[in-house]
Amino acid sequence: MTKLFCAFLEPVVTLQLASPTSAAWIDQAIRHFDLVLLDHANCEKKAAGNALSLLFRYPANGQLVEALSPLAREELQHFERVHRHLQRLGILLRPLPAAPYASRLNQHLRRHEPEHLLDALLVAAIIEARSHERLGLLGIHLPDPELRQFYLWLAAAEERHWQLYLDLALAQFPADQVQERLDTLLQVEAEILSTLHPEPRVHS
Amino acid sequence: MTKLFCAFLEPVVTLQLASPTSAAWIDQAIRHFDLVLLDHANCEKKAAGNALSLLFRYPANGQLVEALSPLAREELQHFERVHRHLQRLGILLRPLPAAPYASRLNQHLRRHEPEHLLDALLVAAIIEARSHERLGLLGIHLPDPELRQFYLWLAAAEERHWQLYLDLALAQFPADQVQERLDTLLQVEAEILSTLHPEPRVHS
Repeated sequence: MTKLFCAFLEPVVTLQLASPTSAAWIDQAIRHFDLVLLDHANCEKKAAGNALSLLFRYPANGQLVEALSPLAREELQHFERVHRHLQRLGILLRPLPAAPYASRLNQHLRRHEPEHLLDALLVAAIIEARSHERLGLLGIHLPDPELRQFYLWLAAAEERHWQLYLDLALAQFPADQVQERLDTLLQVEAEILSTLHPEPRVHS
Repeated sequence: MTKLFCAFLEPVVTLQLASPTSAAWIDQAIRHFDLVLLDHANCEKKAAGNALSLLFRYPANGQLVEALSPLAREELQHFERVHRHLQRLGILLRPLPAAPYASRLNQHLRRHEPEHLLDALLVAAIIEARSHERLGLLGIHLPDPELRQFYLWLAAAEERHWQLYLDLALAQFPADQVQERLDTLLQVEAEILSTLHPEPRVHS
C-alpha cells in the first residue's frame, strides 16, 4: 500500500527529444553507411570513455561507481560488435574526425559542483536518447537485414542507458531541478542538430 | 612441420622483474590493508583507463583494438569486485592520492612513434607483472581467507595481462628490440621501487 502511495506521488521527469531526426540524415546515413559505421565504433568507445571519466571524477560516489562501471563494460562490448561488423564488411579501421555534436553539447556543462554532475548526467542521457532514436532509424531503414537486427538490438540498449543516466540524476537531485535543466539542454541539443553536418556521422 | 619449425626458431623474450618486492612492503600493506584495497580499486580503474587510452590513440590498429577492449572490460570487472570487498569491509570510498610509481614510469615513454607504442605496451606489461607479484603476495599473506582467495585469483589474471601486453609488443616489433627496451624499463622500474613510498599503496 505504502509502495503504491509512493509510486503515485513520485515526481515524473520526461525526456523527450525536442526535434525528431530529419529524413535528410537518414538518407545521408544510408548512402554513406561505411562512414557512419566507423563513426559509430568511435561513439561506443567514447561512451565507454565518458562513463569511465565520470567514475574517475567522482571516486567517492558509490551510486555512480556501481552503475557506471557495468555501463562502460557494456559500451565496450557494443564497440567490439561494431568492430566485427566493420571487419565483416571489409571496412578498414582508420581515424575519423568526429561531428561537433558532443563537444558542442559539452560546452554547456556548468563548471561548479554539484551542477556539473547534474549537467554531465543529463548530457549523457540526451546523447544516449538521440543514439536510441538514430540507431533505431538505422534498424528500420538499412537494406542489410543482419544490420537491421543489430541496430534494433542496440537501440533497445541505448534506451536503457538514457534511463540509467536519468535515474542517476534523479537519485541525486530534486526532480523539478532535473526537469528544468533537462528541458534547457534538450533545446540546446535540437539547436545543434538543426543544421545537418556535411560529413555522414551518427550525430550529424 | 612448418609450425614446429617456426616454434623452434621463435625468439624468446623474457620479462623478469629486476628486484623482488621487499618484506617491508608486505608488512606495510598488511598493516594498512584498508588503504591498499582502496588504492587497488583505483589501480583497476586506471588499468581500464589505460587500455582505453591506447585504443583511442591507435584507432587504426586492429590488433590493439581487438585485444584491449576485452582487457578493459576485464579490468572493470575486477574493479567492481574490489569495490564489493570495500563495501563488505565497510571501507568508505574516497579519493586517495596515487603512489608516484606509474607517473614516474610513464616519464620514460619516448614521444615519437613507433617507439611510443612499444614503450607504452612494455610499461603496461611491467605494471601488470609487478601487480601479479604483489597481488600474489597479498594472496599468500593476508589474514582473511576470502581475501587470500580473491587475490590469488586476481594474480593469475594479472599474469595473463602482462603476457598479453608483451605479445602485442612482439607482434609489432622485432624481438631483440623488445627485449632490449624491456630490460632498460625493468631497471627503471626497480629503481623507482627501491625506496618504499611512505603511504601504503599497491605500488609503494
